[in-house]
Amino acid sequence: MAVANELVYLTLREAADGLRRRAFSAVELTEAVLARTEAVEPRVHAYITLTADQARAAAAAADGEIGAGRYRGPLHGIPIGLKDNFYTAGVRTTAGAKVLADFVPTQDATVVTRLRAAGAVITGKLNLHELAIGSTTTNPHYGATHNPWNLDHIPGGSSGGSGAALAAGLCFAATGTDTRGSIRNPAALCGVVGFKPTYGRVSIFGVVPLSWTMDHTGPLARTVEDVALVMNAIAGYDPQDATTVDVPVPDFTSGLGQPIRGLRLAVVRNWFFDALDPEVRAALETAIGVFRGLGATVEDVELSSLTPTHEVFEVITRPEAAAWQHELLAARPDDYGADVRMGLEMGELILAIDYIRALQLRRIMADEQYALLRRYDGLLAPTRAAPAAPIGVAATVVDSREIAIGRQGLTAPFNLSGIPAISVPCGFSTAGLPIGMQVAGRPWDEVTVLRIAHAYEQATDWHTRRPPL
Amino acid sequence: MAVANELVYLTLREAADGLRRRAFSAVELTEAVLARTEAVEPRVHAYITLTADQARAAAAAADGEIGAGRYRGPLHGIPIGLKDNFYTAGVRTTAGAKVLADFVPTQDATVVTRLRAAGAVITGKLNLHELAIGSTTTNPHYGATHNPWNLDHIPGGSSGGSGAALAAGLCFAATGTDTRGSIRNPAALCGVVGFKPTYGRVSIFGVVPLSWTMDHTGPLARTVEDVALVMNAIAGYDPQDATTVDVPVPDFTSGLGQPIRGLRLAVVRNWFFDALDPEVRAALETAIGVFRGLGATVEDVELSSLTPTHEVFEVITRPEAAAWQHELLAARPDDYGADVRMGLEMGELILAIDYIRALQLRRIMADEQYALLRRYDGLLAPTRAAPAAPIGVAATVVDSREIAIGRQGLTAPFNLSGIPAISVPCGFSTAGLPIGMQVAGRPWDEVTVLRIAHAYEQATDWHTRRPPL
Repeated sequence: MAVANELVYLTLREAADGLRRRAFSAVELTEAVLARTEAVEPRVHAYITLTADQARAAAAAADGEIGAGRYRGPLHGIPIGLKDNFYTAGVRTTAGAKVLADFVPTQDATVVTRLRAAGAVITGKLNLHELAIGSTTTNPHYGATHNPWNLDHIPGGSSGGSGAALAAGLCFAATGTDTRGSIRNPAALCGVVGFKPTYGRVSIFGVVPLSWTMDHTGPLARTVEDVALVMNAIAGYDPQDATTVDVPVPDFTSGLGQPIRGLRLAVVRNWFFDALDPEVRAALETAIGVFRGLGATVEDVELSSLTPTHEVFEVITRPEAAAWQHELLAARPDDYGADVRMGLEMGELILAIDYIRALQLRRIMADEQYALLRRYDGLLAPTRAAPAAPIGVAATVVDSREIAIGRQGLTAPFNLSGIPAISVPCGFSTAGLPIGMQVAGRPWDEVTVLRIAHAYEQATDWHTRRPPL
Repeated sequence: MAVANELVYLTLREAADGLRRRAFSAVELTEAVLARTEAVEPRVHAYITLTADQARAAAAAADGEIGAGRYRGPLHGIPIGLKDNFYTAGVRTTAGAKVLADFVPTQDATVVTRLRAAGAVITGKLNLHELAIGSTTTNPHYGATHNPWNLDHIPGGSSGGSGAALAAGLCFAATGTDTRGSIRNPAALCGVVGFKPTYGRVSIFGVVPLSWTMDHTGPLARTVEDVALVMNAIAGYDPQDATTVDVPVPDFTSGLGQPIRGLRLAVVRNWFFDALDPEVRAALETAIGVFRGLGATVEDVELSSLTPTHEVFEVITRPEAAAWQHELLAARPDDYGADVRMGLEMGELILAIDYIRALQLRRIMADEQYALLRRYDGLLAPTRAAPAAPIGVAATVVDSREIAIGRQGLTAPFNLSGIPAISVPCGFSTAGLPIGMQVAGRPWDEVTVLRIAHAYEQATDWHTRRPPL
């Protein structure tokens, strides 16, 4: 068991190196992960559906190929979890919704197809906030996922199962979706790394839609290098997905290890217009010091267009979500959670002219970010205004103000603009809960975002800490 | 006067050659156009605002430059009219609307900037259907434009002033906008050429918006070569316009004169689902024979997604237009024409989920066209179901069915898909009214569309006829 736990907390890169060198087999790695899952899943509840038998078969197949000299690359034989809104052929895909409880797709999402082609071992389908609309992952239909750092607290969301599984050592990477922050929020609250690429970089084909003009897919993992390795497998134009863009795809690891001396970073101070927890603020200031120590310049800026972020976001996403759910909502309203149902029903009432004007405001907001990124190489911001809240509370006091959990995310502006943004661990609260920081950058220049985040990560040790589970 | 009329009906290419060879001066050319305008404008009423003095000054400047050896290219010294929804610095821009009667922009639209940079002589601001929402150009605020082929008939619209001015010999090219067919409709009804490029090819910055997800700008002229020459001046990415796309810009004349033997063309037979005038149908069949004579193959196809074209179009355009007009509409409802006001007021009531679903349907319809264009090099269709209707009627009988004038255009499918489409003259009714035919093609491949249309044009003489004005 001690040996197994050493395996499960390897980074993806370390696990890949071990498999390539045959220090251990994919079956051993997978069995270690499954044993760990058996041990902690009753307390964490990261999964909706565990596919242990399929994982064992895939691991054996990987060992066969690797043994025969047909090594596919760094994901070959690596246990990876899927958020349960990614279609999996023959395995039910609930999107955390009761209305999709019996939905068994006949084909994989493009991201899943690509992960399988890279040799990944799919461990199962991870819990999420219902329909990815929310950030607690206290799912009324499939149960609450618990934060491995404190089981009484939320893991964040909507990709809460993904974040919790990584923190708990149940996989080496996981997929997430991010419409308002659903990759970065649980990464921050679970002390792992979550990366939302540029809108159009990774296919959303075969992912249950929430708000298709802002839906992104991307990886969560325990290090920046690990998310870059997953990006190398999943990124790129998809003829089945009209939102993907046919632009050159870089090696996402190509900037890692390059110094960041001389890079210009901006802290968007009015990002935090609601409130900011003092410990989060302190962690941010400490991180700024680390960046300066690495030779980057860090300046304070303001984005004048930020104020209506929440309103613009909701006027766009609610009707987009309602347009997809309309018939199911009309037929089975009581089968939705109260929060999700209310949001969808509000979406039904929004007028097209308001939606259109919100789209236009979004464009203005995005343009201001693009302009800022002509002067700066990266933007810094906390990921959440506060560490993980206790399960079951609707709001917590942040900096003397009561703020709804759903408003504590500081991630939405990068969904409005579609620029790449990562969340990396940047500290812990005195209560021992993780704190996350975002680095965002220019459209299509994920390499620079990952380079900046990696330089920070390597100068700190937050990512090496493990929960007391 | 005979000499002047010979000048005014030169093609743009012929006029450019004459200027370059100094067979005549830009001032002579402009004076000929202005004299012609003075003679026929009281009957045609193509203009809302004539800028004769500015035109004379620009012509003199062009002559100075050409005389000094600084010839800018084929538009240098050429009189060109602007649809009155293109911003012109210091010259009022009404968009045909009473609510904009006093609007004097402080800058030019990008297209206007580019035309001026190419040395064009701007003759004035051409009449249009109010706010470009309609196809009669019977403007309740600025008067009706009359079809030069029969003054009792409409010129089509919304770029009716542009079509009429070209047919009447008042300019060598004109700008138009095309959201549902507003370039191609008047081109067809006035017996000239109108070209809607790929969505994103030409800037819409500084053009009064109608429906920004389908608004296109483009040229009208009397020949295919002439619209290609204008395209060379106006096309290309515009940093001020987020709808333009930064893709390579071809020489739009580069396909002209190339044979079309072996090209595969498709006639979309169910395009004409409402009805088709027998003379229009006969002209289309004759044109198909011409294409076959040129060695192209022509096959009949159907597009299964065409049926909801009008409904999808209206659910998208009405709220997009209303979003722009909302405050003015609330403050001054009686200042809109009855048809435009009703359309805008309906736009105010459409729900976002319906708009979003219409966007999704649009995508399905576009995808079917893209798929068809993998098998065919071009699509053929009539431009209008019938020749120009008399001014003042709401509907005419087409093929035994009463069809509203606004439903006689067969142009909207190419706005839904954004593919390039041109209207070229293909015959005349027994009453002497022009008939137009569309050629559409692959996104960004305007060169092939122009090549096909040019081959047809050169094999016929419809474009050489002049109205009895």
